[in-house]
Amino acid sequence: MLFKSTRAVLVAILSLASLGGAFNLGEKPVQNDKPLSIGYIIFPGFEPLDIFGPLEILFSLSGTYNMTLSTVSFTSGPVSARLPKPFTIGPDGPLTDPKYVLDPTIMATHSFKNAPKLDIIIVPGGVGDFLLDNENNFEMEHFIASRFDQAEYVLSVCTGATTLARAGILAGKRATTNKSAWQWATSSRHGANVTWIPNARWVSNEKIWTSSGVAAGMDMMYAFLSFYYGSEQVNNTVNGIEYAPHTDPHWDPFAVVHNVPGADTSRSLIDCTGPAGY
Amino acid sequence: MLFKSTRAVLVAILSLASLGGAFNLGEKPVQNDKPLSIGYIIFPGFEPLDIFGPLEILFSLSGTYNMTLSTVSFTSGPVSARLPKPFTIGPDGPLTDPKYVLDPTIMATHSFKNAPKLDIIIVPGGVGDFLLDNENNFEMEHFIASRFDQAEYVLSVCTGATTLARAGILAGKRATTNKSAWQWATSSRHGANVTWIPNARWVSNEKIWTSSGVAAGMDMMYAFLSFYYGSEQVNNTVNGIEYAPHTDPHWDPFAVVHNVPGADTSRSLIDCTGPAGY
Repeated sequence: MLFKSTRAVLVAILSLASLGGAFNLGEKPVQNDKPLSIGYIIFPGFEPLDIFGPLEILFSLSGTYNMTLSTVSFTSGPVSARLPKPFTIGPDGPLTDPKYVLDPTIMATHSFKNAPKLDIIIVPGGVGDFLLDNENNFEMEHFIASRFDQAEYVLSVCTGATTLARAGILAGKRATTNKSAWQWATSSRHGANVTWIPNARWVSNEKIWTSSGVAAGMDMMYAFLSFYYGSEQVNNTVNGIEYAPHTDPHWDPFAVVHNVPGADTSRSLIDCTGPAGY
Repeated sequence: MLFKSTRAVLVAILSLASLGGAFNLGEKPVQNDKPLSIGYIIFPGFEPLDIFGPLEILFSLSGTYNMTLSTVSFTSGPVSARLPKPFTIGPDGPLTDPKYVLDPTIMATHSFKNAPKLDIIIVPGGVGDFLLDNENNFEMEHFIASRFDQAEYVLSVCTGATTLARAGILAGKRATTNKSAWQWATSSRHGANVTWIPNARWVSNEKIWTSSGVAAGMDMMYAFLSFYYGSEQVNNTVNGIEYAPHTDPHWDPFAVVHNVPGADTSRSLIDCTGPAGY
């Protein structure tokens, strides 16, 4: 850092102190030098917030803790949220044509063939999962299964849990998934012996964490990173990005909204939240 | 849609009814044929959730209402959240090197030179704003100013409000911005005669809506789209993506957290939320 005078030093310190987590870019992050290798799986027809909700928290925290990001897909290069062809939700569903939806496009840095060693694997969901199911395409699942032992943790958001089931890594485990597509997502067709939890914002097993749909990924990621790194910097981060996380994994009003069998209709649908640590 | 039998029709209808908004892809959307042309400005050093929070709600709604998306930057092609060089926060700030942060990369479909007609312009924030300020680069602002009259609405998230100030379109108007970078963002250096509101999750003027930092963009977008299209389908959408929006624009605990001058310290920091419309 370049300082012109003592006054400039004081201004700099006060400015940085007031910035909070959103612009918490320092010098080299404070944890041990070996960066945490994060692998975010992406695929055509991804759900945008399944990726960028949790990724925002990671991005903000990456100024404090040493991390790298690989975005991994069938091929490297551009990947669109709009599917290129119609699909059905399950083998008996009506044909749905996504050609009118918006098409935000993100870059995959690696393919399933050349991804580096990954410490944390994160699997989003989206309508792309329906098409891969239609096509009996298990390449993503094979990749996840092949990297499972090497990973410290595997997390899924939304219908990404169904991908984990198809990969065989949820057998004998508890998990949750998207509530608006619950019927498709929890079908035993995808994987036997999975204990699907109908009332859960997220579920944590030893090394597998699964969240409910879309926005729930952020709440799971907040809980996971608080567990992994401790609360202080993680609270600083979510306060910097002005996100008030839902911290009770049993708060799941969307199971009620979407008529999930076994939803807890006796509990209030409301959750009260505020700045983390306050 | 292809139906094999009456039973299949019933299964299809029940499946779609239970899906909610997250997979609300139908045939051609129900509104008038002319699509709403959305322009999302992006730039190196964008804040991921500034873009993909609001964009998730738009994406989910785009199966119901006819929309197109242009992502507009200095040049078309890949745009990274990681800046390529160090920056200072304002002219007196310390030099900050972002080389260790994560680098999610998204695609710009258009440049400022060739963007189509835009009905809704959305301007995110991010550390890239600091570098553009360092470099006295006003190309983004010139684009916004040139398209302002033609647009129906202009929205900003986070330090994107400072971009609107620099574009000259906030003169004589009320606005809010990121609370963790409040001092930099509201400097009169960026634009005179802006009434910056310290306690606001978002502020709406006739055609300009500005939100507080990062996650606040989603709450503003929910309010804006409810205003623009009406509540029913928009509520369906946020319930499908399992997001419980903050609906009070005066709830702004992060102004207190970040010691913003004029923050309302008398009010509770907590907001209670649940599924929209319940």
